[in-house]
Amino acid sequence: MNLLMFSGEYDKALAALILANSAREIEVEVTMFFAFWGLCLLRDPEKMTMENKTSYEKMFSMMTPKGPGELPLSKMDFSGIGKSMLIEMMEDDDTPELIAFLNGAVKKGVRFYVCKLSMEIMGLKEEELIPEIEVVDAKTYLKDALESNMQLFI
Amino acid sequence: MNLLMFSGEYDKALAALILANSAREIEVEVTMFFAFWGLCLLRDPEKMTMENKTSYEKMFSMMTPKGPGELPLSKMDFSGIGKSMLIEMMEDDDTPELIAFLNGAVKKGVRFYVCKLSMEIMGLKEEELIPEIEVVDAKTYLKDALESNMQLFI
Amino acid sequence: MNLLMFSGEYDKALAALILANSAREIEVEVTMFFAFWGLCLLRDPEKMTMENKTSYEKMFSMMTPKGPGELPLSKMDFSGIGKSMLIEMMEDDDTPELIAFLNGAVKKGVRFYVCKLSMEIMGLKEEELIPEIEVVDAKTYLKDALESNMQLFI
Repeated sequence: MNLLMFSGEYDKALAALILANSAREIEVEVTMFFAFWGLCLLRDPEKMTMENKTSYEKMFSMMTPKGPGELPLSKMDFSGIGKSMLIEMMEDDDTPELIAFLNGAVKKGVRFYVCKLSMEIMGLKEEELIPEIEVVDAKTYLKDALESNMQLFI
Repeated sequence: MNLLMFSGEYDKALAALILANSAREIEVEVTMFFAFWGLCLLRDPEKMTMENKTSYEKMFSMMTPKGPGELPLSKMDFSGIGKSMLIEMMEDDDTPELIAFLNGAVKKGVRFYVCKLSMEIMGLKEEELIPEIEVVDAKTYLKDALESNMQLFI
Repeated sequence: MNLLMFSGEYDKALAALILANSAREIEVEVTMFFAFWGLCLLRDPEKMTMENKTSYEKMFSMMTPKGPGELPLSKMDFSGIGKSMLIEMMEDDDTPELIAFLNGAVKKGVRFYVCKLSMEIMGLKEEELIPEIEVVDAKTYLKDALESNMQLFI
């Protein structure tokens, strides 16, 4: 299974990571390819740097979500109120938070590809992201996706 | 064909249901798996209940769209004005409304899977949804999707 | 590879056209099927007409983006400020603009299918779109997509 992670939204990332974890549990190979806003999920809030960034890149770094905790909902976010509500409802239901599913996916051997061009445009550096990633180009993504028996754009 | 219905928006649901109906007409098997906001499409506005719901779940039930008629557009909704305009344009063109495509899909034998975890988190009960659904987990979705020759995340 | 272009957003169109160009470079067949908002990408701003349109269709023609240059971002658009910023960041990085990727895709032989029903509902005429398109119905899309080894809904 190959998931193209474009959106960088809490609820979509949650759906994708639940699928990735479930797929590994039934021994399906999983690649997640992060592009554009999807990169925000992989940012480590502790490792933000402003070195070697243009002023646009600095602005962009500050305005975009820094890691899984800061991703907004795709709808009904209401500046975070909707998201807090969803997280409380997940807790009531003993569903783990997004970060737990991300760590689970890492531990279960999901492959994390990151789009080289997106990193360059946004000015994100490899050391600002979680260490388990591999930076690749669009063709590497395509070859992996074309060999998978299932691809989603999320 | 397997469609993961995540978004719960009028225009995306319309596109998905037109594809589902067309696929059945050329004898392709179709599964639609409803998760997160996608569940709103399957709500029966006559069957809403507040029993056995936490206060968050009650609030959520009231704030989210109750059935196909209430789904917003993914863009240019303008609190419903854009949607009314689209529906009028569809009428001018003799295109049926969303509910007709939903009923068509049911009649043509499209399989309706609903995500168990989403139902639990949102506090929706099976009796609040249309009767043709089957509640399944992520692994059941994955197995169906992996066996399909086409999957979309909508 | 078959891409269903639904969203009509600058960043998603950019991602899709980068994939389409890259796929052609490794000799993969590519079909892009444009439906709903996706049609806006193919509008030629020089060729807009108001003839034979209902008043809703005229309004719709004026309110929706006219060609690749006018597409908004899927997030952080801020009435165009976010988009200008992204475009400047792309320039700093020598990444071509959206229109260059569209022209590249045309030149490299990507197949451009346009959804007949969407055109009828929105009241767009074939002569308002770029000339390289072919107007088809949902079943033609489905047959193409089912034969591809990869499909995305964008």
